[in-house]
Amino acid sequence: MLPMLDALIAERIRPRFGSAGLVRRVVKTTDVRESDVDARARPVYERWRTAPVPIATSILATQGQIELHLTAPARRQNEGEAALAAAVRELETVLGDVIFSTDGRALEAVVGDLLRERGMKVAVAESCSGGLLSSRLTDVPGSSAYFDFGAVCYSNEAKTEWLGVPAALIQANGAVSEPVARAMAEGIRARAGVSVGIGVTGIAGPGGGTEQKPVGTVAIAVVTPQAARVRTFQFPGERHLVKSQSAQAAMNILRLMLLDSAKGDPALD
Amino acid sequence: MLPMLDALIAERIRPRFGSAGLVRRVVKTTDVRESDVDARARPVYERWRTAPVPIATSILATQGQIELHLTAPARRQNEGEAALAAAVRELETVLGDVIFSTDGRALEAVVGDLLRERGMKVAVAESCSGGLLSSRLTDVPGSSAYFDFGAVCYSNEAKTEWLGVPAALIQANGAVSEPVARAMAEGIRARAGVSVGIGVTGIAGPGGGTEQKPVGTVAIAVVTPQAARVRTFQFPGERHLVKSQSAQAAMNILRLMLLDSAKGDPALD
Repeated sequence: MLPMLDALIAERIRPRFGSAGLVRRVVKTTDVRESDVDARARPVYERWRTAPVPIATSILATQGQIELHLTAPARRQNEGEAALAAAVRELETVLGDVIFSTDGRALEAVVGDLLRERGMKVAVAESCSGGLLSSRLTDVPGSSAYFDFGAVCYSNEAKTEWLGVPAALIQANGAVSEPVARAMAEGIRARAGVSVGIGVTGIAGPGGGTEQKPVGTVAIAVVTPQAARVRTFQFPGERHLVKSQSAQAAMNILRLMLLDSAKGDPALD
Repeated sequence: MLPMLDALIAERIRPRFGSAGLVRRVVKTTDVRESDVDARARPVYERWRTAPVPIATSILATQGQIELHLTAPARRQNEGEAALAAAVRELETVLGDVIFSTDGRALEAVVGDLLRERGMKVAVAESCSGGLLSSRLTDVPGSSAYFDFGAVCYSNEAKTEWLGVPAALIQANGAVSEPVARAMAEGIRARAGVSVGIGVTGIAGPGGGTEQKPVGTVAIAVVTPQAARVRTFQFPGERHLVKSQSAQAAMNILRLMLLDSAKGDPALD
């Protein structure tokens, strides 16, 4: 339907509306709660709601992602676009780096562009996300330029055999642990011979949870030439949601590391 | 919302309706066109439309999947359920093995159950589907019982290094070819040491197409202890659709092979 709308219908409808149309920007955030986005963004969008070029804002919460949809009347001489651009700049100031996109790009496209700009390649070792991280990274046209290899290793044996994670490390810490996530990231990075390695290990559910590590516990490690970051999450929701939030969080950690390394900050944890 | 509906709202609403409610069955098919499903199913659902317990049918086309949604009045003594069961049996007769599910299960759950029943494990080597096949197989709770390993190998080097696909084979046939798909399936099967190997290689687009192999060309191979099947598809649509249809087709080939092997037919191509 969308190609038909773009190619055949839109061009017939558009001239009838002219400057009476609407313009829109979408500000996408992640790793932040809807209530926090709202609290920080509300002063901005409340003011713009009654500005000379008024902007209507709606908040949309999807899996691991909160979006602000800003709509303004187009008006003449791009007044609508100018108002939206000013509002987006204000939102960037109050929300900071939880914003990953203001131009419609998905997180995988943002991360892909950062990798491409730096001439870096990524390899991915997944347990609980089951291939979804690789799939999202390769959803982007041209991702073969920076996506090198993905491994989906559910079993402990596969983690040891394919990624070189020491069996003793799994024995000592459990498969869902920060040391194992880091060993997965380092293992896939070394074996693929690329600059960035990502390791994701967790409990997607519904089974497999324990009191110490309930369903939704996910350890994610990202290793670059400059740094390594490891974080443990406790994601809510059922299996699909745990998988999608894991993929999202892994990409976001990588995004922030690539931005930080651009700032010339080598002293990461 | 769905857990809230099930736990809190449905039980309050249901008693008010009693036997006035509706019952429903969904018949899911794949690897068949909507017009073909309709042509074969129409005599069945037209007759049931005016039967004593009338059944309303709607056809839903999603990515690589055509569904028939059958709805009947519940009535007393399960008259509605009985009518639906009879209609589903008739649809099974006219549609045959393009039906993969009549009980709501997704294709990945059907394939998973077949693997589990046979005590078989599967390993997956993906190029154009980019991890989506692994992700769909692992969408099923408990899939760690039969999903062993997944490899996402975009580059020719990765196919050679991780899967043991001979570089000369790729050179001679191109990476998107039936011999390479089969070598990927055999390679991942051997390296993972499991009974079933799947190889998927194709052109997801938008770039990379040629006159001989346009965007959407996908070769898929499935290798089991009894047999090997290789098929080349020409999928329509953009990148996401090519990926999802590739994953769907690979699972369906495996489903049909497992069903055929149960019939004791060892003479597969």
